[in-house]
Amino acid sequence: MQYNNFDKTTAFKTLSALVDEGNNFNYKAVDAVRVQSAIVPMSTGLVYSYAAKPVTASILKALQTLADEQELIRKYQALLDGETMNTGENRKVLHHLLRGQLGKDVVFEGKNLGTFYKQELARFSAFADAVHAGKITGTTGRKFTTAVQIGIGGSDLGPRALYLALENWADVEGKRKLNAKFISNVDPDDASAILTPLPLEETIFVLVSKSGTTQETLTNELFVKEKLKEKGLDPSRHIVAVTSETSPLAHNKAYLDSFYMDDFIGGRYSSTSGVGGVILSLAFGSDVFKEILAGAHETDKLSLEEDIHKNPALLDALIGVWERNFLGFPYTAVLPYSQALSRFPAHLQQLDMESNGKRVNRFGQPVTYSTGPVVFGEPGTNGQHSFYQLLHQGTNVVPLQFIGFIESQRKDDITVDGSVSQAKLKANLAAQIVAFAKGKEDANANKEFIGGRPSSLIFGKRLTPSTLGALLAHFENKVMFQGLVWNINSFDQEGVQLGKILTKKVLTGNFGDEALEAYSKLLEI
Amino acid sequence: MQYNNFDKTTAFKTLSALVDEGNNFNYKAVDAVRVQSAIVPMSTGLVYSYAAKPVTASILKALQTLADEQELIRKYQALLDGETMNTGENRKVLHHLLRGQLGKDVVFEGKNLGTFYKQELARFSAFADAVHAGKITGTTGRKFTTAVQIGIGGSDLGPRALYLALENWADVEGKRKLNAKFISNVDPDDASAILTPLPLEETIFVLVSKSGTTQETLTNELFVKEKLKEKGLDPSRHIVAVTSETSPLAHNKAYLDSFYMDDFIGGRYSSTSGVGGVILSLAFGSDVFKEILAGAHETDKLSLEEDIHKNPALLDALIGVWERNFLGFPYTAVLPYSQALSRFPAHLQQLDMESNGKRVNRFGQPVTYSTGPVVFGEPGTNGQHSFYQLLHQGTNVVPLQFIGFIESQRKDDITVDGSVSQAKLKANLAAQIVAFAKGKEDANANKEFIGGRPSSLIFGKRLTPSTLGALLAHFENKVMFQGLVWNINSFDQEGVQLGKILTKKVLTGNFGDEALEAYSKLLEI
Repeated sequence: MQYNNFDKTTAFKTLSALVDEGNNFNYKAVDAVRVQSAIVPMSTGLVYSYAAKPVTASILKALQTLADEQELIRKYQALLDGETMNTGENRKVLHHLLRGQLGKDVVFEGKNLGTFYKQELARFSAFADAVHAGKITGTTGRKFTTAVQIGIGGSDLGPRALYLALENWADVEGKRKLNAKFISNVDPDDASAILTPLPLEETIFVLVSKSGTTQETLTNELFVKEKLKEKGLDPSRHIVAVTSETSPLAHNKAYLDSFYMDDFIGGRYSSTSGVGGVILSLAFGSDVFKEILAGAHETDKLSLEEDIHKNPALLDALIGVWERNFLGFPYTAVLPYSQALSRFPAHLQQLDMESNGKRVNRFGQPVTYSTGPVVFGEPGTNGQHSFYQLLHQGTNVVPLQFIGFIESQRKDDITVDGSVSQAKLKANLAAQIVAFAKGKEDANANKEFIGGRPSSLIFGKRLTPSTLGALLAHFENKVMFQGLVWNINSFDQEGVQLGKILTKKVLTGNFGDEALEAYSKLLEI
Repeated sequence: MQYNNFDKTTAFKTLSALVDEGNNFNYKAVDAVRVQSAIVPMSTGLVYSYAAKPVTASILKALQTLADEQELIRKYQALLDGETMNTGENRKVLHHLLRGQLGKDVVFEGKNLGTFYKQELARFSAFADAVHAGKITGTTGRKFTTAVQIGIGGSDLGPRALYLALENWADVEGKRKLNAKFISNVDPDDASAILTPLPLEETIFVLVSKSGTTQETLTNELFVKEKLKEKGLDPSRHIVAVTSETSPLAHNKAYLDSFYMDDFIGGRYSSTSGVGGVILSLAFGSDVFKEILAGAHETDKLSLEEDIHKNPALLDALIGVWERNFLGFPYTAVLPYSQALSRFPAHLQQLDMESNGKRVNRFGQPVTYSTGPVVFGEPGTNGQHSFYQLLHQGTNVVPLQFIGFIESQRKDDITVDGSVSQAKLKANLAAQIVAFAKGKEDANANKEFIGGRPSSLIFGKRLTPSTLGALLAHFENKVMFQGLVWNINSFDQEGVQLGKILTKKVLTGNFGDEALEAYSKLLEI
């Protein structure tokens, strides 16, 4: 297996020669046949549609060659087999193994990690069951009714996005067990505002920090403990830890219990470990969490297909590279037509930008091509009344990723003017794809839409635990494939370190930089 | 007064010649003197700091010339005086007049609009007072405890951002009157999820649509009415309308009362009209809303200063143009170190991208330079554990706008390791500015930070109604000045129209485009 910079491949040259073909892509010629054929089935019944993406047969062929030359599937298999893919930190990358095994047994220091992950899943499933059964209670013996996650970054955005994505579904399907809240920011207003109205004697906290050293999380833990003590409650009966076995939070009597992952589960890839699993199992039951895992595992399996026409995560990744490096678009917008996915773009923003926002390759050498784009987004139809103006008529092109579902989650709907709201939602979605692609001529240039705005669409029957798991894994694998194309390490995050160091300097008064000291004075720190 | 394209000014040439000076800006040389001096006082005690922006004395001088040549202050004054600044729609632009008068009396069709806005403010203030006093109640005579805004786009994002920004402050200051919720999306899950747990007999709805024809809002109105009727409640005793006097919602007995704005208040600029005023007055009292107006008015006054060193909104606008058009950055991130401002970036995203995402000038001619950038953001410190990786070490530069406050809102804090959380929050903020600007050398390129990431900082003592109003108006005026520099109309939004037309085609089955029909079939509409 060879790790080469992207621009050394023959496909890079082929694709460079196809730029005009991409720029001249005739969006207006997108017809029913293309819409029906430019489709790749995803797992769990989801579908990836790329009809409105500026890719022709020859471009797709070159993208396939790129995938082959960069040995993307072999590298993915190597990752599944436990090779050290996080080169910067000298670590394996094993989040797929949380969902099921697709490679060799991964053994580290004599421990079969697949078995370990299964054991932890079983342990926290049993814990959640015991909480639901009232066998584990807080200080006063009352059943827990609320679970609060304390975590930041990967310990917050993914679990929060998944929770919000399923709470309506859980309510109508009778799966709701506990309410969940999330405390993340070191801003004291965050913890204070969330804790104040809570019934603390009925509240269980899930403290999540892999290292057990995250400043925000440990600070908020003490905040929570103080509030519990003020109410005469014993913190050790209200907090469960999710961490690595080498962390100070592990095997610690200060907690009801502790559940473990390890350094091979990166923060932003940890939603399918105990980091997401404990809070989601507490909120909805462990069976629901296992359905998420099953959906993700199906996607992981499908992502092993060599043929880009059978592997939607791979195809999505390659089209993204095409748009980023050859058509020159520095951003991409994620637009879910589903209010339940309101925070899914924030999770994808982290997943993508933290993984692939890198300027050196996996060997630590600066690259000379663009890597990860800026990712942002909000749910439609809300965005239509907001930033879509720029997307339609701005001076730059922003590639778009639409997501939609045939059915609503709650199935509580109303017919107005001959259509239900869900139909209106979907009609808006279909309309936007075509409006962005084809535009509209107008003698008044202010009312003209030049079109040529590329978009893809992921859709399925309904947002459920399994389709959500599939969606999550699709984007994880897409980001992984893009990182492999760019020959970067998508699994470290050295960019977070400098801020931590300087923060410590400010807090200890050893500034070492007069601007830092001057800013600290302005802010009266 | 002359309206010229930006690239026709002499300043454009001067600035073009200064690009190397900007690109070579020595961030590492930013010292205490620059931090202390590169500051412009804003209104209400806020401060705009641009020490870490790539502007030298000669660049600032050229930006002043640009402001002068484009007659930005004269045009702003003309806008205040009621000239038809929204040329595309042939309308005045009068949101400043909602906060106070800074120009001539604006009379339209015999009506003094300043007086009209004041009367409406007085009317909805009295209405809110009567609700709080229990003089206006719902069907069963019980006091209203919850207010729900039904609106989308400008009728949602701004009011929602302001509500979230102040709810903690209101709680600790004893200003909380009602809880507020927001329904926006046509996704039926949005309305269903919000309505289901509400005590409907104690709930008042604020139906907001200027035109009275917004599909999402009217659909959600009927959704709400049905739920009220199911509970035996009379919708006309639970809904108040905010609209224009020519809308079908006006003077309509179906509502408890109606409050009016007019076509001169654009949606995204309407937070300081009844669009934001009714819900905020219901939630916190009309005195709190008036403090927001007073803060905004102070900013509006300050924005009349010709000297960029005395006019922070103008300076901020010009630095943004410098970064966009001369340094070539296609995006900007808004990073509030305040959990209360969690949705403020979403409002600014709308404000900026919907106003200045235009490719034609105010005369309808395509421009040949870039206009509004993509705007995105999340609160810090959360973002530090997420997308900041790309901001620090990605292949592109993203200019940053930090916002912070010396004190927390709730003043409920904890000392851990010798510092309170608010100090940690601020230390992180100071650290990030310096980390982005100066970077850090490292023999390991993967751990190197090349720096050179520009940022500005807006800070103040505490986030209160008046500082929030000032902040809001700062960005409104910044966006206005940028639009005037670019010679575009920041006050229309033709880019929303095509989607509406195509949605209607889908819903009526008269597709007129086979791709549209094919997408509709895929989505089973």
